[in-house]
Amino acid sequence: MSTPDGPTDLAGMRERNLALVLAEIDRSQPITRARLAALTGLTKTTVSARVAALTALGLVSAEDPVRAGRGRPGAPVSVASGPIAGLGLEINVGYLSACVLDLTRRVRIRRSVLRAGAGSDPDRDVAALGRLAHAVTGQARRAGLTLVGTTVAVPGVLHGGAVNAPNLGWDALPAAELLAEALPSQPLPVTVDNEANLAALGELWFGAGAGLGDYVYVSGETGIGAGIVVAGALFRGTHGAAGELGHVVVAPGGPACRCGGRGCLEQVAGLDAVLRAADVPDTAPAGPDVRDSADLLGAGAAELVRRLEAKDRRALAAAKRAGEGLGIALVAVTNLFDPAALVLGGLPARMAPWLTPHITAALEAGGGRLRGRTPTIWRSELTDGAVLGAAGEVVARVLAAPSAVA
Amino acid sequence: MSTPDGPTDLAGMRERNLALVLAEIDRSQPITRARLAALTGLTKTTVSARVAALTALGLVSAEDPVRAGRGRPGAPVSVASGPIAGLGLEINVGYLSACVLDLTRRVRIRRSVLRAGAGSDPDRDVAALGRLAHAVTGQARRAGLTLVGTTVAVPGVLHGGAVNAPNLGWDALPAAELLAEALPSQPLPVTVDNEANLAALGELWFGAGAGLGDYVYVSGETGIGAGIVVAGALFRGTHGAAGELGHVVVAPGGPACRCGGRGCLEQVAGLDAVLRAADVPDTAPAGPDVRDSADLLGAGAAELVRRLEAKDRRALAAAKRAGEGLGIALVAVTNLFDPAALVLGGLPARMAPWLTPHITAALEAGGGRLRGRTPTIWRSELTDGAVLGAAGEVVARVLAAPSAVA
Repeated sequence: MSTPDGPTDLAGMRERNLALVLAEIDRSQPITRARLAALTGLTKTTVSARVAALTALGLVSAEDPVRAGRGRPGAPVSVASGPIAGLGLEINVGYLSACVLDLTRRVRIRRSVLRAGAGSDPDRDVAALGRLAHAVTGQARRAGLTLVGTTVAVPGVLHGGAVNAPNLGWDALPAAELLAEALPSQPLPVTVDNEANLAALGELWFGAGAGLGDYVYVSGETGIGAGIVVAGALFRGTHGAAGELGHVVVAPGGPACRCGGRGCLEQVAGLDAVLRAADVPDTAPAGPDVRDSADLLGAGAAELVRRLEAKDRRALAAAKRAGEGLGIALVAVTNLFDPAALVLGGLPARMAPWLTPHITAALEAGGGRLRGRTPTIWRSELTDGAVLGAAGEVVARVLAAPSAVA
Repeated sequence: MSTPDGPTDLAGMRERNLALVLAEIDRSQPITRARLAALTGLTKTTVSARVAALTALGLVSAEDPVRAGRGRPGAPVSVASGPIAGLGLEINVGYLSACVLDLTRRVRIRRSVLRAGAGSDPDRDVAALGRLAHAVTGQARRAGLTLVGTTVAVPGVLHGGAVNAPNLGWDALPAAELLAEALPSQPLPVTVDNEANLAALGELWFGAGAGLGDYVYVSGETGIGAGIVVAGALFRGTHGAAGELGHVVVAPGGPACRCGGRGCLEQVAGLDAVLRAADVPDTAPAGPDVRDSADLLGAGAAELVRRLEAKDRRALAAAKRAGEGLGIALVAVTNLFDPAALVLGGLPARMAPWLTPHITAALEAGGGRLRGRTPTIWRSELTDGAVLGAAGEVVARVLAAPSAVA
C-alpha cells in the first residue's frame, strides 16, 4: 500500500490527484475545497492547487461563494459546462449520427444524416463520418465549445485494432487509424467501440440502466448486438467480442448470414429481414435527410411501425417471427447470464409492443420453471443510446485523465 | 484504509490474521515464521501466535527445521495433511459420489455408488446421500481424518435456498436443510451448489483450468450445465442461475423438456437422449455397484462409448446429432461470452472424439469469420470434477475462516 513519491513519480502523483479531485467534484458538485479535502484525504493545499489546475484547463468552474456562518465564504466548485466537450459519432447501415456532450453530460448538439440501405464502401463511410464531424465541430465552435476527443460507435466486432462489420462491408478495417486522419484534430486519441456496448453504457449513464441491476442491452438495426452490463461495467469477454447476440443461432439450417453461419438471429429479427418479411420497401431518403433530433428511424422502419399500428397482416407476421427469434436468443442469454433485466433498444425498442409478448412467452416456457423467475423486460426510452454512450465515453476519458485535454 | 482495532474488534482482527497467515502458508509452504512476517506485513510475535493457534487447530504442522547459516534454525511450517479434511458429495441421476480431501488438497478417499436411471424420490435421494456420507466418514475416521464440512453438488438450480432439479424430480427442495439432518454432524454448515459450477472449480483447482484464461466448462450427464469462470472466479449471475446451458434452445419446436421449454440442448445431447437415439439400453447395475475410483461412467454410457469405438451406425448418428446440438449452444456461448476456451467435462468429455468435429465446424461457421478466432476446445482429464470441486470448496472455506473448524 506504499505510494511511490520520489521525484520521478511526482508528475504521476499530480495526475492521479487531479483525476481524484475531478472525480469527487463530478460526484458531489457543487462542493467546497474544504469538503473535497475531507472526502479525498488530500491536504487543503493540495486540493487548492489541483482545483486551480483543473480550472486553468477549463474543466472546473467556481460557483457563487456560499457564506457559511460568519467565517470566510466557502467557494464551491463544479464541473465546467464549457468550453471542454466530447464528440460521439455513430455509423450504422441506415444513418450517421453525432452528439456533443459537455462535461456536465448535457447534450449540446445532435445531428444525424439518414442514408440509403447498406453501404459497402469503407472509404466513403470514413469520409462521410469525417464530413459530419467537421460540420459538428464548426457548430460546436460557434457555440463556444472545444471538442477534445471522439469515440465512434460501429456495428461490428473489434479484432486486434481492426473492425469487422459485415453489414457495412468492413473487413478488418483499421478504422481508428483511418478515422484519425478524417476527423478534426483533437488532443485525445480516436476510440472505436461496438455500438451495442456503447448503447448499453448510454442506458447506464443517461437512461434507466443504473436502477436495473445487471442487464443485457439488445441493440439492433440491420445487425443485432448486445451490451452486457455486470456490476455497473461492461462485460467484454476475452477478446472484446462478447455480446454478439445477432449471431446466436435461432433457426438451425436457416438463411445464410454475412458472418458465415446460418439461421443467425439477425437473419430473422434484423431490420432488413423484418422489412423483407413484411414486404416493406426500404426506400432511400429522396433528398438529404439531416436531423437535429434523437430520431434515427429510417423510412422503412417508420413505415413498418405504421403498418404494425394499422394491424397489417404481413407486418404482424414479420413481427411475430422476429419476436420468436428474439425469444429463442434471449432464452439463451437468460440461461447463460441470469441477468436481472433485458433492455430492448434500437429497432427492438420501436417494435417492443409487438415483440414483447413473444419474448415473454419464450422466457416463461424456456427454463422459467427451472429458475422460478424471468428477467424484467425494459424498453429503452433513448432512441440514440449508442451515440450518447460514445460521447459519454469521451467525458469519462477526460475525467480519468484530465491533463490530457491540454 | 484504517483498520478497526478497538477491543471489540480484537477477535475479528485475530480471525483475519489467522486466515491471512494460513493463506500465505498455503501459497508458499514450507515457509518460516520470519518469511511469513515479511510476506504478510505482520510482526513476528503476531505470526508466531497465529501459527501456534493454527497448529492447535490441526491446520498447520511443523516441518523439520532447516539450519540457515550459523543462526537459530528456521522452523518452516506447512498446511497439515491431517487430521482436518473436507467432504465433497455429488448426486446425479446415475450415481452418488463422495470425495475426501485433506487440507493439502490430496484425495484421501473416493467412493461412488452407481444406480439405475432417474430417481424421483427426493427423500430416498437425501437418505442415500446420508448413508454414503456416514460410510465415508467412518472410513475417514479409521484413516485418522476428521471431516469438518461438506459441500454437495446437485444437477439443478438453486433458488432462494431451495433446489430445482427436474431430472431428479426435486422441485423447490430445501436440500441444505434436509441434508444437514441426514449427514454426520460437522462444525461447518452444509453447502449445496450446482454441479457444473463445482466441476468448473474442480478444473480450476485440480485440472487445466488455471492455464486456460476465461473458460466455460460444459458438464453433463442426463442434464447439461455449464460453469463459467471469469478472471479465476465463478460467474454466477444475478440469482445464481447462470450457466444453464442445457436449456439453450437448439431445436426450436423440438422435444419437450422438463424445464417447460422445447428443443433444449439436453433433449438432444443429454445422456438419456443420446442413449435413446443410439438405441442403447440404460441398464441398471445388476447388484450394488460401489467403486473406489474416479470412474462414474454408468453401464449405458460405457456401452455407448464401446459402440462408438466400434463405429456402430446408430451410435455415430446419435453422437452427430448431439455434437450439432452442442455446436449450436456453444456458438451462443462463444458469441455471448467470448471465452478463451471451452472445456468439455462429464459425458461430453467421454464422447469428445465424436463430438468435437461437429462443435469445431459450428464454431468456425457461426461467427468465426466475424471474430477471426474461435475458442480453444479442451477435454477435461478429470472424470469426477464436480465432487472434487465440492471437496475443494470445503478446503477453501476452512482457509477463509480457520477458527470455524474448532
